[in-house]
Amino acid sequence: MTRIAVIGGDGIGPEVTAEARKVLDVALPGYEATEYDLGASRYHATGETLPDSVLDELDGHDAILLGAVGDPSVPPGVLERGLLLRLRFAFDQYVNLRPSRLWPGTSGPLADVKPGEIDFVVVREGVEGLYAGAGGSLHKGSSAEIATEESLNTRYGTERVIRDAFERASRRDRRHVTCVHKANVLVHAGDLWRRTFAEVAADYPDVDTDYQHVDAAAMFLVNRPQSFDVIVTDNLFGDILTDIAAAVTGGIGLAASGCVNPDGAHPSMFEPVHGSAPDIAGQGVADPIAAILSVSLLLENLGHNEAATAVGTAVGDELSGRTPGLPLSTSDIGDRVATRVSDIL
Amino acid sequence: MTRIAVIGGDGIGPEVTAEARKVLDVALPGYEATEYDLGASRYHATGETLPDSVLDELDGHDAILLGAVGDPSVPPGVLERGLLLRLRFAFDQYVNLRPSRLWPGTSGPLADVKPGEIDFVVVREGVEGLYAGAGGSLHKGSSAEIATEESLNTRYGTERVIRDAFERASRRDRRHVTCVHKANVLVHAGDLWRRTFAEVAADYPDVDTDYQHVDAAAMFLVNRPQSFDVIVTDNLFGDILTDIAAAVTGGIGLAASGCVNPDGAHPSMFEPVHGSAPDIAGQGVADPIAAILSVSLLLENLGHNEAATAVGTAVGDELSGRTPGLPLSTSDIGDRVATRVSDIL
Ligand SMILES: CC(C)[C@H](C(=O)O)[C@@H](O)C(=O)O
Ligand SMILES: CC(C)[C@H](C(=O)O)[C@@H](O)C(=O)O
Repeated sequence: MTRIAVIGGDGIGPEVTAEARKVLDVALPGYEATEYDLGASRYHATGETLPDSVLDELDGHDAILLGAVGDPSVPPGVLERGLLLRLRFAFDQYVNLRPSRLWPGTSGPLADVKPGEIDFVVVREGVEGLYAGAGGSLHKGSSAEIATEESLNTRYGTERVIRDAFERASRRDRRHVTCVHKANVLVHAGDLWRRTFAEVAADYPDVDTDYQHVDAAAMFLVNRPQSFDVIVTDNLFGDILTDIAAAVTGGIGLAASGCVNPDGAHPSMFEPVHGSAPDIAGQGVADPIAAILSVSLLLENLGHNEAATAVGTAVGDELSGRTPGLPLSTSDIGDRVATRVSDIL
Repeated sequence: MTRIAVIGGDGIGPEVTAEARKVLDVALPGYEATEYDLGASRYHATGETLPDSVLDELDGHDAILLGAVGDPSVPPGVLERGLLLRLRFAFDQYVNLRPSRLWPGTSGPLADVKPGEIDFVVVREGVEGLYAGAGGSLHKGSSAEIATEESLNTRYGTERVIRDAFERASRRDRRHVTCVHKANVLVHAGDLWRRTFAEVAADYPDVDTDYQHVDAAAMFLVNRPQSFDVIVTDNLFGDILTDIAAAVTGGIGLAASGCVNPDGAHPSMFEPVHGSAPDIAGQGVADPIAAILSVSLLLENLGHNEAATAVGTAVGDELSGRTPGLPLSTSDIGDRVATRVSDIL
C-alpha cells in the first residue's frame, strides 16, 4: 500500500491540500494518508519546527504532499529553514522539478503567446549553493557589521542534477537542455557547472544544449519563453527563474513542483510553488490547481503514469471548459477536477 | 572643461558609443573626450585588461562613457572581472542605477500595459555581495571538486546604497521604495538588508516602503511592473531584476545604466545594459538608444539637468514619431536624436 504523508501547513496550505487529496482519492484508490501538523501554529504552540521523531516517521512514507508553510507571525527563515528546507536537505531532494505550461483555456500576461506554446521544465538543484546555510554575521547591529552567505557547490551535487535534466530531456520531444548560471561573475561555481554540463552532455549526443547567464535567461523567459525545453540551474537561480516561469504562464496559482530524490532513498515531496498567502486564507478563494498538479507529479514519480496523465488531462479540460463568469470556490474546483479524473480512469 | 573618457569596447559597443557621442556633442558642447582602447582586442594583443596606468588616467576624468565589453573569444570572466567590474570596484561605483520606462511609441511583451504606465528605477548595489570575488575551488577537475562563492555584505555598503535609494525616491512623485532580498533563506545578509532598510526608512517619513523576496519581486515585475517606483537590492539580484525590467519595457535595446559614485570621489560610468552582441556587430543594425539614454544619465549626474532632460525628450519624440516600416540604421538613429536634441536646446 502506498503511504503518503500530508503536511497542509499554513494559510491556504490546508485548503488547497484538501482539494488535492480529493483528486488523489480518485486517482490512487486505497492509499494510506497520515496528516502531520507542522507549520506556524505548531511552532507557536511548542517552539518546534520539525522534531527529529517526526522527520524519522516522514522518512517511512512513499511521498509527501505539502501545502505551504510560512506566516508573518514567525520570524523570516525559521519555518523555511527549520521545516521546508530541512525536509529538502534531510531527504536529499536534490532535484527540484518545476514544469511550466501555458494551459489551454488560460492566458498569461504576454501578448504574443498562445496556450500550448509554452512548455518547459526547470530542473533546479535542491540541496546545494546558497541554500547550504553557510554564512554568518559579525558586529551585528553596529556600523561595523558584516554578513556573509556562502554558495557551496560540489561536482557530486552538480553532476547528479545535470544528469537528471538530461534524462528528462531525452524523454521529451524537443530534447534540449539549457544550463543557466552566472559564469562571467561567479567564476568558480560557474566553471564547475559549465564543465560538468559539457561532460554530461557528451553522454547524451541526441540532446541539444546551450548555456545562458542567469540575467539573460530571466530576460528570455519574459520575451521568448517558447524557446525553452529543459533548464538546469542552481538552487537560487532556479528559485527566481521558476517564479518568472509561473508569472509568464498565468501565475503562481497553476505552478506545481516536486522536490525529488530520484534515487528513491527517501520520500520525494510535492508542493505548489505558491506560498501560504495568509491574506486570502479561510475564504475559499484559493486556487487548488497548483496543489492538484503537484499530485500529478507525485503520481508520476511513484510510477502511476496513467493516473498522473489523467490528472493533467482533467486539469486541462477543467481550465479550457470553464463557463466564463461562473465563480468557483476552492472546493468547487477540487470537486470538478476529481470528477473529471474519475471519468477518465 | 568637462573631461569624458570613452571606452567603446567590443562588438556593437564602439558603434553605439559613436552615436551616443553625436548626442553628447550637441548636448554638452566643448567637452573633452579621450578614447580608451580596452576590451577583447587589446586583451588578445597585449594580454592586458586594464593596466594600472590606464586606471589612474581614467580616474582623472569627470565621467566615463562605456559601450560594451565581452567577446566569446575571451574566457568567461576575464573581461568582466578584469575590466568592467574592476572599474566599478576601483571607482567605488556603489550605486548601479537602472531606470525602466515603457517609452511612448514602443510596446513591450505584456498585453495589458501601455506606454507611460511603467516607470521605475532599480538602485542596485554595485560593489558588494557575490560580486566581491570571494570564492575558490578545490580538487578541480576531480570527482571531489568543490567550488564556493561568497557574498560579502557590510552595514557600511548596505546603508549608503539604501540611503541613495531613499534620496531618489523622495524626489519622485510616488515616493515608494521596495527593498528586495531573500531574507527567508539568506538569513544573515537578508537580515542586515532589512534592518538597515528599516533604520534608513525612519529618516524618510514621507517615503513609503515595502519588502519583497527576490522570487516574488521577479514575478511582480512580470505581472504588475506598474506597481514599482524605486527598488533597492543587492548586486546579483539587481543584475537579474534589471534584465527582467528591460524585457518588460520592450527590450534591452532601450535600457540605460549608470555605475555611480555619488560621493564624486571617482568618475561615474554610464553604459547600456546590453552586451557586446558580437553576432550583429559591424552591420549598422544595433540600436543606439540605450547608449544615448546612458548619455542622459551622465548629463544628469554631472548636474546638466536641462541637457539631460532634452536627451530624454528627444528619445521619447524619436520613438513615438517614427514612420512605421521605415528602416533606420544605427547611425540614422544617432543623427535623428542629435538633431532633435539640438532643436530642443
Ligand atoms: C519558501 C522558500 C524557502 C522557497 C525557496 O526559496 O526555495 C520557495 O521560494 C520555493 O521556491 O519553494
Ligand atoms: C557583464 C556582467 C559582469 C554585468 C553584471 O553582471 O553586472 C552585466 O550583466 C550587467 O548587468 O552590467
